[in-house]
Amino acid sequence: MTESRFSRVALIGIGLIGSSLARVLRREKLADEIVACDRRQATLDTALQLDLADSVTADPAEAVAGADLVVIGTPLSAYAEIGQRIGAAVAAGTIVTDVGSVKAAVIRDLKPSLPAGVHLVPGHPVAGTEHSGPEAGFAELFQERWCILTPPADADPSAVERVMRLWQRAGMKVVTMDAEHHDKVLAITSHLPHLIAYTIVGTATDLEEMLKSEVIKFSAGGFRDFTRIAASDPVMWRDIFLNNREAVLEMLQRFSEDLTALQRAIRWGEGEKLEELFRRTRAIRRSIIEAKQA
Amino acid sequence: MTESRFSRVALIGIGLIGSSLARVLRREKLADEIVACDRRQATLDTALQLDLADSVTADPAEAVAGADLVVIGTPLSAYAEIGQRIGAAVAAGTIVTDVGSVKAAVIRDLKPSLPAGVHLVPGHPVAGTEHSGPEAGFAELFQERWCILTPPADADPSAVERVMRLWQRAGMKVVTMDAEHHDKVLAITSHLPHLIAYTIVGTATDLEEMLKSEVIKFSAGGFRDFTRIAASDPVMWRDIFLNNREAVLEMLQRFSEDLTALQRAIRWGEGEKLEELFRRTRAIRRSIIEAKQA
Repeated sequence: MTESRFSRVALIGIGLIGSSLARVLRREKLADEIVACDRRQATLDTALQLDLADSVTADPAEAVAGADLVVIGTPLSAYAEIGQRIGAAVAAGTIVTDVGSVKAAVIRDLKPSLPAGVHLVPGHPVAGTEHSGPEAGFAELFQERWCILTPPADADPSAVERVMRLWQRAGMKVVTMDAEHHDKVLAITSHLPHLIAYTIVGTATDLEEMLKSEVIKFSAGGFRDFTRIAASDPVMWRDIFLNNREAVLEMLQRFSEDLTALQRAIRWGEGEKLEELFRRTRAIRRSIIEAKQA
Repeated sequence: MTESRFSRVALIGIGLIGSSLARVLRREKLADEIVACDRRQATLDTALQLDLADSVTADPAEAVAGADLVVIGTPLSAYAEIGQRIGAAVAAGTIVTDVGSVKAAVIRDLKPSLPAGVHLVPGHPVAGTEHSGPEAGFAELFQERWCILTPPADADPSAVERVMRLWQRAGMKVVTMDAEHHDKVLAITSHLPHLIAYTIVGTATDLEEMLKSEVIKFSAGGFRDFTRIAASDPVMWRDIFLNNREAVLEMLQRFSEDLTALQRAIRWGEGEKLEELFRRTRAIRRSIIEAKQA
């Protein structure tokens, strides 16, 4: 049977996801020792205070020394530097995984820095809230959600298996897929929705002052849902768009064409075209409810 | 003191909003008699079965005969015909109001048909769910939400007062504003968000089959919120876009320009532009939370 316990887990980045995982590690007793690493001392202090780690450090190399599991949970733009800093310190046999929302770029940024014998198993627990930081985390965040692993073709099967078990213990349903495919699927299910939400909330902030205060007042009509999405972590999302550029631009292009067609239908009063689309979109909602994702 | 009880209330259209109002009228004992009118017999049968009306009819003229309050809750495209059909039957002194999401068009469509002495007080309770029909309604739908009345300049103040009281008894915070201004505010807070949600869900339904099934599976990443909005009533929303064309097209134009700017920033890797916007949108979310609309 696959060993599910780790002796030393290094959490590089201890924000919403990292701290939620720390809580799972504690609850499930999956780590003899947790070390948290973050650039900001305040974040590390909070992590210690919340008993999310046994020790803390700002140095990734120190964090990974002696670790058998390394989980990177920082914004994507920090990956390349983290790879370089841990490359010499991480021991053969160690599993390195991450929780980033883009996967092809991760492999591109991390793999070259890791010595032979270190097992890279990129992962993406599809879960989150609009809140950030270690105090925003909670162990139930992952419950019943999907976790997508994108191991490279030459990944060690038992390392993949151990990461899979980890997320299953967090309550997740785990699947594996190709990194490029992951990035396409997430471009439409997550990245484009966030981009659109950020845009419309931005459009509203540019309105004349009087109109703007009323937008806030009467936000219950649909706009409010967008503001929740658009309150997500700015650096994390900046990095997602920069690192999944091609897939996001491709989906955005399709969306813009469809929106232009609707704009034209409104301008020319083509009610039947609008109604036809609006009926079609109901079916997708029903599929989501049937798939128990609603 | 303004009388808050009505002797006979005619509900023209008994869908989500009409049926929720019927439940409020029952709970608050605001009507001696409720008559429900709808084109579909099945809807009328349900209304009777749920005790939402004392009598039902498919004929608007019959419904408004003897009524002191008429509430129109049909899709906007039915208003002109309803106006023509009730014009000869509605008595002087009767208050005619509605619950439509567009207001300038209502006044344009209804006012000419109503005889002198009939008090037109257009209204918009800003509340709803993605469900439709009399069985989807509930009395608490309006609780703590805004209701916007857009009485014409020559409206009878005591009629406006009575409609205001009615929605207050439903638990709503009632404000009045100019119809054109209402239509602009709602274009950005409600109509544009719905249009965008319909579009992106439509874009997803056009994806290659394999990708599409995964969009449903991994919808939790943001897409799911859009599918809920895009499951709203197709005919109601078709009519909203056709009747608030100018304001929607104006807001859509602004949105498209902003989206194009973001698209360009992603293409050219301008991270600081993305991050700047993403920080700005968080502030709007905070304002909404402070305004207790979240």
